Amino acid sequence: MRTVEEYRNDLYSMKPNVYIAGKKVKRDDPRLRGGLYVMSKTFELANHPDYRDLLTTRSHLTGKKINRFTHVNQSAEDLLAKQEMTRKLCHLVGGCIQRCMGCDAINALSIATHAADMEHGTDYSQRFADYLKEFQSRDLTAACAQTDVKGDRSKRPHEQEDPDMYLRVVEQRSDGIVVRGAKNCITMSAVADEIIVVPTRAMTPADKDYSVAFAVPADAEGVKIISRTSSLRAPEEMDMPQANVGDDEGFVIFDDVFVPWDRVFLCGENKYATLSAHLFALFHRHSYTGCKPATTDIVMGFGALIAEYSNIYDKHNIREKLVELASVAELVYAAGIASAINGTKTPAGTFLPNEIYANVGRRYAGLNYYHELEILAELSGGLPAALPFAEDFLNPETRPFIEKYIKRRSDVPAENVYRCLFGISNILCSSFGGVQAVAGVHGGGSPVMEDIAIWRSYNFEEKKEIAKYLTGIKE
Amino acid sequence: MRTVEEYRNDLYSMKPNVYIAGKKVKRDDPRLRGGLYVMSKTFELANHPDYRDLLTTRSHLTGKKINRFTHVNQSAEDLLAKQEMTRKLCHLVGGCIQRCMGCDAINALSIATHAADMEHGTDYSQRFADYLKEFQSRDLTAACAQTDVKGDRSKRPHEQEDPDMYLRVVEQRSDGIVVRGAKNCITMSAVADEIIVVPTRAMTPADKDYSVAFAVPADAEGVKIISRTSSLRAPEEMDMPQANVGDDEGFVIFDDVFVPWDRVFLCGENKYATLSAHLFALFHRHSYTGCKPATTDIVMGFGALIAEYSNIYDKHNIREKLVELASVAELVYAAGIASAINGTKTPAGTFLPNEIYANVGRRYAGLNYYHELEILAELSGGLPAALPFAEDFLNPETRPFIEKYIKRRSDVPAENVYRCLFGISNILCSSFGGVQAVAGVHGGGSPVMEDIAIWRSYNFEEKKEIAKYLTGIKE
Amino acid sequence: MRTVEEYRNDLYSMKPNVYIAGKKVKRDDPRLRGGLYVMSKTFELANHPDYRDLLTTRSHLTGKKINRFTHVNQSAEDLLAKQEMTRKLCHLVGGCIQRCMGCDAINALSIATHAADMEHGTDYSQRFADYLKEFQSRDLTAACAQTDVKGDRSKRPHEQEDPDMYLRVVEQRSDGIVVRGAKNCITMSAVADEIIVVPTRAMTPADKDYSVAFAVPADAEGVKIISRTSSLRAPEEMDMPQANVGDDEGFVIFDDVFVPWDRVFLCGENKYATLSAHLFALFHRHSYTGCKPATTDIVMGFGALIAEYSNIYDKHNIREKLVELASVAELVYAAGIASAINGTKTPAGTFLPNEIYANVGRRYAGLNYYHELEILAELSGGLPAALPFAEDFLNPETRPFIEKYIKRRSDVPAENVYRCLFGISNILCSSFGGVQAVAGVHGGGSPVMEDIAIWRSYNFEEKKEIAKYLTGIKE
Amino acid sequence: MRTVEEYRNDLYSMKPNVYIAGKKVKRDDPRLRGGLYVMSKTFELANHPDYRDLLTTRSHLTGKKINRFTHVNQSAEDLLAKQEMTRKLCHLVGGCIQRCMGCDAINALSIATHAADMEHGTDYSQRFADYLKEFQSRDLTAACAQTDVKGDRSKRPHEQEDPDMYLRVVEQRSDGIVVRGAKNCITMSAVADEIIVVPTRAMTPADKDYSVAFAVPADAEGVKIISRTSSLRAPEEMDMPQANVGDDEGFVIFDDVFVPWDRVFLCGENKYATLSAHLFALFHRHSYTGCKPATTDIVMGFGALIAEYSNIYDKHNIREKLVELASVAELVYAAGIASAINGTKTPAGTFLPNEIYANVGRRYAGLNYYHELEILAELSGGLPAALPFAEDFLNPETRPFIEKYIKRRSDVPAENVYRCLFGISNILCSSFGGVQAVAGVHGGGSPVMEDIAIWRSYNFEEKKEIAKYLTGIKE
Repeated sequence: MRTVEEYRNDLYSMKPNVYIAGKKVKRDDPRLRGGLYVMSKTFELANHPDYRDLLTTRSHLTGKKINRFTHVNQSAEDLLAKQEMTRKLCHLVGGCIQRCMGCDAINALSIATHAADMEHGTDYSQRFADYLKEFQSRDLTAACAQTDVKGDRSKRPHEQEDPDMYLRVVEQRSDGIVVRGAKNCITMSAVADEIIVVPTRAMTPADKDYSVAFAVPADAEGVKIISRTSSLRAPEEMDMPQANVGDDEGFVIFDDVFVPWDRVFLCGENKYATLSAHLFALFHRHSYTGCKPATTDIVMGFGALIAEYSNIYDKHNIREKLVELASVAELVYAAGIASAINGTKTPAGTFLPNEIYANVGRRYAGLNYYHELEILAELSGGLPAALPFAEDFLNPETRPFIEKYIKRRSDVPAENVYRCLFGISNILCSSFGGVQAVAGVHGGGSPVMEDIAIWRSYNFEEKKEIAKYLTGIKE
Repeated sequence: MRTVEEYRNDLYSMKPNVYIAGKKVKRDDPRLRGGLYVMSKTFELANHPDYRDLLTTRSHLTGKKINRFTHVNQSAEDLLAKQEMTRKLCHLVGGCIQRCMGCDAINALSIATHAADMEHGTDYSQRFADYLKEFQSRDLTAACAQTDVKGDRSKRPHEQEDPDMYLRVVEQRSDGIVVRGAKNCITMSAVADEIIVVPTRAMTPADKDYSVAFAVPADAEGVKIISRTSSLRAPEEMDMPQANVGDDEGFVIFDDVFVPWDRVFLCGENKYATLSAHLFALFHRHSYTGCKPATTDIVMGFGALIAEYSNIYDKHNIREKLVELASVAELVYAAGIASAINGTKTPAGTFLPNEIYANVGRRYAGLNYYHELEILAELSGGLPAALPFAEDFLNPETRPFIEKYIKRRSDVPAENVYRCLFGISNILCSSFGGVQAVAGVHGGGSPVMEDIAIWRSYNFEEKKEIAKYLTGIKE
Repeated sequence: MRTVEEYRNDLYSMKPNVYIAGKKVKRDDPRLRGGLYVMSKTFELANHPDYRDLLTTRSHLTGKKINRFTHVNQSAEDLLAKQEMTRKLCHLVGGCIQRCMGCDAINALSIATHAADMEHGTDYSQRFADYLKEFQSRDLTAACAQTDVKGDRSKRPHEQEDPDMYLRVVEQRSDGIVVRGAKNCITMSAVADEIIVVPTRAMTPADKDYSVAFAVPADAEGVKIISRTSSLRAPEEMDMPQANVGDDEGFVIFDDVFVPWDRVFLCGENKYATLSAHLFALFHRHSYTGCKPATTDIVMGFGALIAEYSNIYDKHNIREKLVELASVAELVYAAGIASAINGTKTPAGTFLPNEIYANVGRRYAGLNYYHELEILAELSGGLPAALPFAEDFLNPETRPFIEKYIKRRSDVPAENVYRCLFGISNILCSSFGGVQAVAGVHGGGSPVMEDIAIWRSYNFEEKKEIAKYLTGIKE
Repeated sequence: MRTVEEYRNDLYSMKPNVYIAGKKVKRDDPRLRGGLYVMSKTFELANHPDYRDLLTTRSHLTGKKINRFTHVNQSAEDLLAKQEMTRKLCHLVGGCIQRCMGCDAINALSIATHAADMEHGTDYSQRFADYLKEFQSRDLTAACAQTDVKGDRSKRPHEQEDPDMYLRVVEQRSDGIVVRGAKNCITMSAVADEIIVVPTRAMTPADKDYSVAFAVPADAEGVKIISRTSSLRAPEEMDMPQANVGDDEGFVIFDDVFVPWDRVFLCGENKYATLSAHLFALFHRHSYTGCKPATTDIVMGFGALIAEYSNIYDKHNIREKLVELASVAELVYAAGIASAINGTKTPAGTFLPNEIYANVGRRYAGLNYYHELEILAELSGGLPAALPFAEDFLNPETRPFIEKYIKRRSDVPAENVYRCLFGISNILCSSFGGVQAVAGVHGGGSPVMEDIAIWRSYNFEEKKEIAKYLTGIKE
């Protein structure tokens, strides 16, 4: 497994193809530091005694010890461990741990390639296994580029006026394929080693050119990443772990990118392209049953702490809000547990989370994110929106006034109150916080996407039968 | 195990101590038929090939085959089986299956008696084991009388002006105790063999007289059951299983009732009285993770069926409502699964559901019941409130008009539409339906009670630590 | 104006054409007593010093004093007075006052007939004025039959397989028309003098036969009213005004009913049929801004009273629920005020409520009804579902026990507690309560209908212009 | 009335006492430009033909034409005009118009000073009238400093360990008073001419030193404003009005500030201090019934526009979200109308909005703000969180890719789509947007404060009487 150093150096040596705010930049650009910090935690803690049992496991292919983020789940226990790992790591970085993207992609492709081979006699699963071995042994990170730009939302891929509105194969060659298109909202694409591409929706036979899945190095020729970065900040002397965090969301252009056959995992099999889209969504939604409870935990922690500092922790209206947050967190987490426990072993060997539970869990999380922010705003009062900047807190001319007047309970130092409000302000009143909120609704598929998944897979007929039985309707 | 016949005959031979609408009645009173019908299902199906594996198990005391409703759970699998059994049986009777009351009571007492013995050197657990053997071998049913009438809500039991506002021991004799008080909202008390009494709240040392748990036959001397009955109705020629159902809620008076020592399971041990109150609530809330999804299933089934009959099943606004119902049902059920999977084996051997998951599940169910009714009303339109009575449907003078004008899709017989609306009307516009709704909020403890349980047991400190770590707060 | 006696006698002398539970009955059937009681209040109080200023006004046609329920609104003040009258009368009968049905119908027709005449040169407005004079001088009550049975919901009137799924003209004769069809969910049709028919939806030119509005006596030849009645009950010795109330919802058959021309107000003018449908809905939704706050007031009153009796009135969680109810009531009422204040004088002279405000008010009321019941259930605890029947309360054998154990605060008589819970039980756990709840969602058009009205009439373009301006989008 | 130039020059010539990010700055600091831009609109448009009738009125003191933001409302029409003006101006600046702060403060003090004089024989109302004349003739702007820092929330002002936790009079001199304390969350304090101080809560006789109201120039000796600024940005070549906007929230220190008697409006009269606190809240909540609908309009406009651009404007799930937003906006606005229409003329001559309607309106707005953001996030998809920066859009190397791939409907230029998403990103994913959201909950008092106001002033007794009447409870 790589060290943080190795991961960074690998990134820093990549070809510059990232654009930020009007300039092409190298991956050591300070605006990428936040995303890098987050990803680094997944390397750094793999050897930490408190985390290593969660963060590492054995490869089912090689038997070697690997980072769990490169693992293809083989059992319910694997899924439960991933869920727990995700929650714990998100606590540490104060939000999304990001690396699950690639992990969920490899899990999805392990099944879809096998299924395609069964019908078409192709050798995708072997190619994929080879890729996976490399992925595990090199301890790689991957962004998963799923969301196409989609153009006119009322039209399918092949119906679009501009045929590039969904990523597609523009040429098949003896040594590989050439692809064109763009994927947007691609988290961590600027700090990943690899980009794994899967389709974004169900594909019909007419959409065969769009039915493609593959992996490329993130700096492959023709790949351009236009990155929107956001981060939290605090002067270094404040020493706040929260302020190390950042996010980058890529608008990733595939400007006629060549992909060699050994990295092509589907090409034209629309049915399995559809399957891979569904499976990535499913694995990713299961991951959300780990990370969303963590973001709720963080909101809850800040809400409880400021209430304690304000000496109102035991008031009824505070308690009911904190309990509401705890309930959201644990219902979502319970859905993940039920999804693991009721999962199924696929013919490919990969263990598949139960679709209904994963979807009701992710859906409920997505429906609550803004409400959680609202609760935090209610618990903290208006001050997070009006808090003097950290530089004012550090300025000897203003600090005594801030310390005097921000103090609440006599046994809590003024600085603690300031820090707590600063952390809340970072969540509620920063561009990073806003990005996390939008991601809280849409990441992994917004509630309306889960609605579709549930509508498609839930057994409503069985429920109608209950109504018929009860009222004596015979046919 | 008893047959339905035997159960009924046992009831019919009980001493009349039930009052309904101003008269003392025997247990063969037609107004009790509905409750009896529900309970009977738990006997009848114990031999049914589709249900017997769920409905029966082996006693951990005797190794004999017993009805699962008389079983003390020994494992997570037991809890999962109980949850599944509950959901399935509730489907069949169109609502609450009722018999879980006694089952949850014996589970609670199996732990509380053992714990009391550990501290006090008493022999409650042995007495209880003897009672349990009888309970299992005679295949008994029990109401659990927990909710005291409580008097002035701002006062503890021993502070009340009238000391009988919580049930209490008024005399200790060599052969047993004499108790006085009243319990209300006691479901199925008029159709149960036994009444098991547990305390309703935490007891302080000053509340020792109120710290009592015991079992009596439901027709014991001094017990009076004032029963509010409600039922669904349809002319017999309609042949609607739903219309067999009924409910009875007892206001149970203990007018100086003698209980022999071998049926006394706690007497003065306030700490374990408190424990037994909490444990009954916990087991009962876990049961709710089985039954509330079932009531949601029923609402969902009727909603889906009337939408199908109206030819609007695939409309977006219908789908989103049905998915919302499915999500509520499965989140609650998932909480029950997670509660079982994360349960613990107690020193008494009984397997205890995880408290947080059981509570967040029951709470979420309780917060949604009226909303589910609202969705059903939205899906069905106003007609359930204005549907011609069944007698008008059967009346040859009016039936042709009703059939002509109630018809919707040409391929669905008018009678099916009528039946479906009739079933919905039973849920939305009957006193039985209203009772179920109130029970949906309060049964097993209302959401505000789950708030208290979560507040008491959830690890909020751990969450505050996350906030402190992220903002660099040291102490 | 009529006395209650006169109104009743007029009803009792009508031809029996009402069917209840399989039998044709006269209008003195006891099951109609509840609806009659409600309607009677509108006659009885017209001379009561506290109500007469609200309940009476001057006819704009004759200048004579009339009951406000027969008045066509001429000003914003008229609408405000109607709103206030409605709220106050609903308080007195504990729910829907019902008589607004006919009042809203005449208001709608006063405009639609005038508008049709303007385009078509017809004389509908004169016919209608003649009818209105009679309506006012005879102090009549009318049900408004709007909701057709609709058949296949995915088809327009003229597309239905059975052409009678919407009421239609089957014959035009020199002396009048013959109509066929059925209207359902017709509140108070069995206790009204007249039935006024208006269309239920927008009509296209192909739906001309369905574009008809008229009035007939409720016992006209060919009219059959299949009535679903519900009521509240209490033994007479309890003397509870609430228990006098009842409701009847008619499934009204028009089995080739002849209507003379002077009672035909639209016949074939599809554009004005559409208008009349919209206008009735609009006036009726404005009426709801008076009645729904009243039902919320009642729920609030019972919730506050039981909280006071339980000695928890000032607890935070009680207060927040009561404030929530007050907010719903007053937001809806405010919408009615704003609708009146921003109304417009039509060319017909009738004063039209503002459409947006009336719709957002009714919509918000409809979205809250079940939630209000939920709040009442939370405030009252489970006892309304388990309350001993009134006969048990009156039975000397059980009354002492009930009185002893239902008592809460020492300064509140047990009987008051019982009565208060009885009233709540009537709301939450009766078929009448269930009917009111469904009507609370659907009466006057369910929230989804208001959505359509708002979507159709709200100026969303203006809002898009704001977004364009702010972001510098020019075209 | 002042021109924008004059207003700016007046500000620029003030003594530097504003601190931003660790430095003391002058009021021409670029970070204050946004707030200044907002305030400037209230001067600039006073002569604009579309706005002058709304933005100006006649002083009731002098009869001269004045800016409406310096007016003391004399009638319901005045309140309606203020409400309309506020909504329209907020549209133009894309959010809070800020200047209402001082306006609401003078309205409150006009009543409180008069009432204090009536009881105490003081001459506050004359002093205030003199001040008001100057305020109007000089066309001043004022921040209203109400919210004290409050220290330990469980203690009253005089109970705090540090007596300065609420602003207080530390010395009374012959020529005036000296005050000490701090006020936080003081919007626009860095761009206002004046600061008007009113108490933040009810004061008891023991809190007399805290019962003080007065006005000082914003750069008075001893006043220090630690300002948290936030703003929206776009490169100038984008020419986006939205990007001119900014906000500053002051933590305002009163470090022994001298106030001459002619600017002291209450000093020790705790009852009227309480009244002034309530009245400012009331007037400010009425102002919110103008501004919150405007912020909802903006959210609605962007949501509708992006839906139109994505070609999904007429989808059911889009429509229902837009209608929901329209309903929130118009219910809040309706509450403001009802509050004005049902207001009362006070003995001071000032017209007082109805308290209940103002509070239910503000409360409903506060409960919906985060939900509105959630709806906007749902309507816009994830792209606002991942949108390439404006500099990338302008960069010729990346612009062609962004234009190609951001395009949706063929008839909508790519740049419009980009601009629309940019505007949404500003709302959802900026620190300014986060500040507005927190202010949306807390500004003018959070929903929990409105709960208290409603609880205090609503006639719940009347509602209990309804319940008693209906159930025959006599006493």
